[in-house]
Amino acid sequence: MTRGGQAADIVETARLLADAARPITLEHFRTVALPTDNKSSDGFDPVTVADRDCEARLRELLEQHRPDDAIRGEEFGVKEGNSGVTWVIDPIDGTRGYMSGTPTWGVLIAARDASGLIYGIIDQPFTRERFEGGQGIAQYTGPTNTSPLKTRDGVGLSEAVLFTTFPEVGSAVEGQAFAEVASRAKLTRYGMDCYAYALLALGQIDLVIEAGLQEYDILAPIAVIEAAGGIVTDWQGGSALGGGRVVAAGSAELHAEALAILKSVVKE
Amino acid sequence: MTRGGQAADIVETARLLADAARPITLEHFRTVALPTDNKSSDGFDPVTVADRDCEARLRELLEQHRPDDAIRGEEFGVKEGNSGVTWVIDPIDGTRGYMSGTPTWGVLIAARDASGLIYGIIDQPFTRERFEGGQGIAQYTGPTNTSPLKTRDGVGLSEAVLFTTFPEVGSAVEGQAFAEVASRAKLTRYGMDCYAYALLALGQIDLVIEAGLQEYDILAPIAVIEAAGGIVTDWQGGSALGGGRVVAAGSAELHAEALAILKSVVKE
Repeated sequence: MTRGGQAADIVETARLLADAARPITLEHFRTVALPTDNKSSDGFDPVTVADRDCEARLRELLEQHRPDDAIRGEEFGVKEGNSGVTWVIDPIDGTRGYMSGTPTWGVLIAARDASGLIYGIIDQPFTRERFEGGQGIAQYTGPTNTSPLKTRDGVGLSEAVLFTTFPEVGSAVEGQAFAEVASRAKLTRYGMDCYAYALLALGQIDLVIEAGLQEYDILAPIAVIEAAGGIVTDWQGGSALGGGRVVAAGSAELHAEALAILKSVVKE
Repeated sequence: MTRGGQAADIVETARLLADAARPITLEHFRTVALPTDNKSSDGFDPVTVADRDCEARLRELLEQHRPDDAIRGEEFGVKEGNSGVTWVIDPIDGTRGYMSGTPTWGVLIAARDASGLIYGIIDQPFTRERFEGGQGIAQYTGPTNTSPLKTRDGVGLSEAVLFTTFPEVGSAVEGQAFAEVASRAKLTRYGMDCYAYALLALGQIDLVIEAGLQEYDILAPIAVIEAAGGIVTDWQGGSALGGGRVVAAGSAELHAEALAILKSVVKE
């Protein structure tokens, strides 16, 4: 099957997965006795029952609907495929936000092939909001309305609203680069997890800058933001498909302005 | 009328105001061309049409339903009364979050008299969540369920989830005091505006520490958190009814633990 021929099926499958993730993630959201493991040796990285249950269910659905595709998920690693299509899944992006009860986490679902991203979804089950991008679709679906996603343009850095999740951002030099951009932005806010990328696609904010991301953290946001007219790269202007340091902007002009500052501090 | 005699009417009026605030604040939420003024000379303090429209409507309703009460609002100042009851209103707490499209702002409504707080509501119109406290009521009302509000106890600082809105917190010494507490907490998160106090009352997080608050920022949160079993004081352990530096905790033990650290850094 050509990519064009199977694109509609991929879009349909992505939505099926996002639909399935909602009740599973909400079942455990804000329950009092959520057991958490610590999967990181050098920090607090909670893995919840919801994370694992959700990813297991999404993998099960992919086995049923698209058995030849590869799968890369945060919790259960890599399943090889032979269709050329790979699904990249983060069952709950923003586990710390999830555990704290904030509506800022999300389910991230992306499909890619050798030529790049095919489709991505950022879904927020509690607010019942879905942000989708790819294959000519750039769509917001909320509890009461559906609308096109469109990033905000014509905003220079001095008027821009900048988001990142953790104030320390990453390493000391990464934090310094972020602080340089933040000092020239109109407003800097924190703590939104993947919801920040959704707000960028919605044209509500202008920049998201993060470091230390994984592939599964950023593929769906890239698909959604690019479909909405924005730009996402690493801090040298290269592809952000692998994760790492990411700068996402609503317009090419603003992206260039932020990138110049980031590159001036972080040289490689 | 005695306080007991009029308490039911105050509760009913507070809910009426919160109901009225929802469509007004949502009408402008996430609209593209939200005009903002800058009412602060030394920073970014947006005042939106929604803020003013909302407070104006709530004042109008109070004039109709409780004409003898005093009113103190963020946008329109003080109206004197002669009933002994004062309403303290922040039509949109977290205007920066509101302007950025995050569901972290809220409508804050509190009623007090000479002997203290009577009732308070934190309302989040977009998520359709209401957190109420006072007069024997400690209640969460969400889009799909109603439940009692109860803070989490039995959590020591090393296991606690701590929130504040801005990482810099306040002055340099205030920031240092916050950082001391944060360094001993399990997890520190940012950016939630008044929603952090709501999550504390819901038993999802354990501590909120902020500085530079106004009376209208904190009265409703105090009413809700105290009704849910938590404790809110200033950083010396005194009343937080006037705003300023605030430490809110889910239990007396955790409050004492955080307070000791804050007092050791900020002496007065």
